[in-house]
Amino acid sequence: VGLGLNDEKGISLKGLEAAREADVVLIEVYTSLMPDLSLERLEVLIGKKVMAIKRSDLEEMAKEGLLREASEKKVALLIPGDPLIATTHISLRVAAEKMGVVTRIVHGASIISAAIGLSGLQNYKFGRSVTIPFPSQDRVSETPYDVLKDNKALGLHTLVFLDIKEDEKRYMKIGEALEILRSIEIGKRDNVVTERTLIVGIAKAGSEKQIVKAGCISELIGFDFGGPPQILIFPGKLHFMEEESLEVLGGYKK
Amino acid sequence: VGLGLNDEKGISLKGLEAAREADVVLIEVYTSLMPDLSLERLEVLIGKKVMAIKRSDLEEMAKEGLLREASEKKVALLIPGDPLIATTHISLRVAAEKMGVVTRIVHGASIISAAIGLSGLQNYKFGRSVTIPFPSQDRVSETPYDVLKDNKALGLHTLVFLDIKEDEKRYMKIGEALEILRSIEIGKRDNVVTERTLIVGIAKAGSEKQIVKAGCISELIGFDFGGPPQILIFPGKLHFMEEESLEVLGGYKK
Repeated sequence: VGLGLNDEKGISLKGLEAAREADVVLIEVYTSLMPDLSLERLEVLIGKKVMAIKRSDLEEMAKEGLLREASEKKVALLIPGDPLIATTHISLRVAAEKMGVVTRIVHGASIISAAIGLSGLQNYKFGRSVTIPFPSQDRVSETPYDVLKDNKALGLHTLVFLDIKEDEKRYMKIGEALEILRSIEIGKRDNVVTERTLIVGIAKAGSEKQIVKAGCISELIGFDFGGPPQILIFPGKLHFMEEESLEVLGGYKK
Repeated sequence: VGLGLNDEKGISLKGLEAAREADVVLIEVYTSLMPDLSLERLEVLIGKKVMAIKRSDLEEMAKEGLLREASEKKVALLIPGDPLIATTHISLRVAAEKMGVVTRIVHGASIISAAIGLSGLQNYKFGRSVTIPFPSQDRVSETPYDVLKDNKALGLHTLVFLDIKEDEKRYMKIGEALEILRSIEIGKRDNVVTERTLIVGIAKAGSEKQIVKAGCISELIGFDFGGPPQILIFPGKLHFMEEESLEVLGGYKK
C-alpha cells in the first residue's frame, strides 16, 4: 500500500481500507522519507497497531518469515510514495508470488510524477532519471554526471534523486548534490554542470513547507531549501511554456 | 487535487479534505479515463455537488472565468491521476498564479509510477516516454517509433501512452497501438517493432480487473486486455531480476 507523500494523509481511501482489513499492518520507512508522518496518527486512522520494519527485515522476509505469515493472514505493508519503485519491494512481491502468496498493490502518489508536475515541465521530455549516491570512502560515482550529459545532448530533462541513508539519518541536500556534480565537472570539463546551468530544486513536496525554486547553480547553491526530502531537476531544452512555468512557479529570472 | 487511479477511492485523505473544504468542486475527466469512477459516489464522499467540466472549459477558464471565481472562493479541481501532467492543467495553474490566485496541489497516484511498478522493471532504466496518437486523416506520427528506437539503442525501457479521445469515447487499445507501430516498421525497417519484440501490456491499472501481461508481439497482438485505459511498455536491456519479474508478474515465457 502506497502512503503517498509527506504525511499519513497521503494514503488513498482504497489504501486505508486495505490497511483496516488486514490482520497485520507493517510500515517500511527506510527507502524514502515522509517528514510529517506520525505513526500514532496513522494508527488512529487505521484503527490498529502499525509495526515499523527496516529494509533488511524486508530482505529477510523475502526469504521466508513474513511470507509464511502472509500465506495464512492478510498482511498490509505500507510504503512511502508509490510501491514497487524500490528494488527491495519488487523482490518481495516476486518472492511472495513465487510462493503462491497472492499480492495486491494499492498505489499512492509518487515523487516521480509530483516533482515533474510541480516543476511545470513536460513529462514526455524527461530522459532517464538518476540517483546521486553519498560518496563512499571518498569515491564519487560519475554515473549521474554521465546521465545528465546524455540527456542534455538529447535536449531532455533529468530527474535527479538524492541519496538517503535512513539508518544514519542522512538525507542528501541539494547543495551537497551540486557540490558532488561540480567536483566531477572539474575532472571531466564537459560543461554539463557550470555556474550558469539551470536547475530546479524541490524540497518537502506535498507538504505545507514545500519549496520549488528554479535558477542557475550559482544562484541556488547557497539557497536554503529547508529540510529533507529534496530532489533536483536539470532541465534540457525548454519550450517557451516550460520557461514561463519555471518563471511563475519557480521564481526563475532569465 | 489528484484522484489517483480507476475509481473515487483513489483520492488521498488530504485530497478529500481539500474537496470538502472547497466552496466549489469541479472534476475534469477528459484528459484521462477512470473507468470505475462514479460521480454520485464521489459526491457522497465529498458531501457536495461535483460539476463535470471539459478540457475546453479549462482552456477558457485559464483565460478568465474560473480564475475570477477562484479569486473570491476556494475552488477544488479534481483531476484523474496526479495533477499537472497534462499541459492544460499546467497552463491553468500558471494563469492562476499570474493573476495572483494562490494554488495548491494535492498529489494522487499516477499511471506513470503505477505502470513502472506493476511491470517490476527498474524506474531508473526508463528513457523518455511517448504517446501514440490516433492517426489523423490516415497520417501516422512516426515519433513513437523513433523514441522506441532511440531508447532501445541506449538499452532503456519506454513507457508508451495510448491516445484518448474522450469526446468520441475512443480509447486506443494495445492491439491498435501495435498495428500502428508495425505499419511504421514496414516503412522504416529498423527492427524496432518485430514479431519477436518483447512488450508489457497493462490494462485498467489500479482496478480489480487489472491485467499485466508480458510477451512478444506475435503472442500479445491478439490478446484481449479488456477495457480501457491501457498502456504499453517496451523493455530495453533486461537485468535478470527484471526478467524474473516479467515472468512472475506478467506471465512472460522466454
